[in-house]
Amino acid sequence: MEKHGLLYEGKAKRVYRTNESGVLWIEYKDSATAFNGKKKSEIIGKGILNNEISTRIFSLLKSKGIESHFIERISSNEQLVREVSIIPLEVVTRNIVAGSFAGRLGLEEGAVLNKPIIEFYYKNDELGDPLLTEDHIEALEIASLDEVALLKEKALKINEVLSQLFLEIGIRLVDFKLEFGKTASNEIILADEISPDTCRLWDINTNQKLDKDVFRKDLGDLTLVYKEILNRLGGEFSHV
Amino acid sequence: MEKHGLLYEGKAKRVYRTNESGVLWIEYKDSATAFNGKKKSEIIGKGILNNEISTRIFSLLKSKGIESHFIERISSNEQLVREVSIIPLEVVTRNIVAGSFAGRLGLEEGAVLNKPIIEFYYKNDELGDPLLTEDHIEALEIASLDEVALLKEKALKINEVLSQLFLEIGIRLVDFKLEFGKTASNEIILADEISPDTCRLWDINTNQKLDKDVFRKDLGDLTLVYKEILNRLGGEFSHV
Ligand SMILES: Nc1ncnc2c1ncn2[C@@H]1O[C@H](COP(=O)(O)OP(=O)(O)O)[C@@H](O)[C@H]1O
Ligand SMILES: Nc1ncnc2c1ncn2[C@@H]1O[C@H](COP(=O)(O)OP(=O)(O)O)[C@@H](O)[C@H]1O
Ligand SMILES: [Mg+2]
Ligand SMILES: [Mg+2]
Repeated sequence: MEKHGLLYEGKAKRVYRTNESGVLWIEYKDSATAFNGKKKSEIIGKGILNNEISTRIFSLLKSKGIESHFIERISSNEQLVREVSIIPLEVVTRNIVAGSFAGRLGLEEGAVLNKPIIEFYYKNDELGDPLLTEDHIEALEIASLDEVALLKEKALKINEVLSQLFLEIGIRLVDFKLEFGKTASNEIILADEISPDTCRLWDINTNQKLDKDVFRKDLGDLTLVYKEILNRLGGEFSHV
Repeated sequence: MEKHGLLYEGKAKRVYRTNESGVLWIEYKDSATAFNGKKKSEIIGKGILNNEISTRIFSLLKSKGIESHFIERISSNEQLVREVSIIPLEVVTRNIVAGSFAGRLGLEEGAVLNKPIIEFYYKNDELGDPLLTEDHIEALEIASLDEVALLKEKALKINEVLSQLFLEIGIRLVDFKLEFGKTASNEIILADEISPDTCRLWDINTNQKLDKDVFRKDLGDLTLVYKEILNRLGGEFSHV
């Protein structure tokens, strides 16, 4: 596989074309950003950690029958994925009240929700990723109501599998963000990444935050925490 | 009917108990507020105007088969209504893009929506009336999903009737806010008020704003504009 031109550089990854049509080359960066890019740092090792963690999670999902864009990890901080046309929605699933969600609705951080909540945010940095209702998604012509129903179904299924996976390694999956895209044959599959950047992960005994909130809230050394996640997922981190 | 103790004083109305259980006495105030109470004025005549306009609209809805809390207008600025337990949702219906909705989703003010959009906001001054999804409404135990479906159905029906009514008097119903409540027998009916305080109304030819945006945006004399609405609705305003 050959790496060709840069297609897109985001806040966490660089996406390149390859010599094979329909296959993209993703490089995980060492950048950490929060609050819609207002807080920003370089954290050596973060790209490698997220590439490894994301690889493990996508592989596990695949073994449970959940397709994603992931093809293979090709270096410490790079992976090959199927090209999709990203649906500009951040699909957020919440099991436990945390983050801005708590203050916004007057709920208590840490409260366990009766059932998982799915939210859709418009993936649009300029507008600050506003919360959308299904009527909004339809009016903006982002997706049809049938597609929205499918996204919800997929998110709930992924939530079941991931919650169980994390539980087995002593972690509560508090909430997480997914992105989906359409393949050339118009199939909707999971894309982007699943990592401590995109999940809230709390140690089941101590409630220690093992995710990007460590960076958002200056709670300590992000790489130590991400290494802890990778270790619990059965990985080793010896590159940095 | 006797007016008894004050039950509740809001930003626009005072609500009193009466000697008859299940019947409330509503006094429309002359206060105008906007931006969650941050902007505030007394505007002589506004209470009388909104009482008259609301009376006409509720009566018209009734003639079209839509039940509301409205019983009768008993003085220039007072009316009797059925007591309900208010569902703490502001049910907003939008036909045309306007207000904060435009900037929030990157849509153009004045754009006609393909179909009406219904939004639910949490009626909670402390939280600043946040937008809610159906999952939120369920999680907050504000209403069941069946009740949400019923509220949507009612709002869409009211939108049809009101859009037609306003069209006939040369006005576009851009958007409006409704509140619903439950009667003692658990029936959900329309409550609160329908007035230029709670609707965006644009003259069909000139696009002149004939609603509370005149106050929000300092566009002129609010009472003149509300009188215009009352006149077009076939009413006369001779009290002030
Ligand atoms: N399989 C894929 N095909 C095409 N684009 C993708 C795929 N997976 C992820 N992307 C996109 O790659 C971009 C880079 O990712 P990231 O750095 O996380 O961006 P952002 O700053 O938007 O979060 C994002 O726009 C993401 O949606
Ligand atoms: N039929 C009714 N029964 C009980 N309460 C009502 C009824 N109609 C309206 N209300 C409530 O009366 C209160 C006063 O109205 P208003 O001054 O508009 O209040 P607010 O400042 O909350 O907008 C509001 O809480 C409204 O929901
Ligand atoms: Mg991203
Ligand atoms: Mg009110």
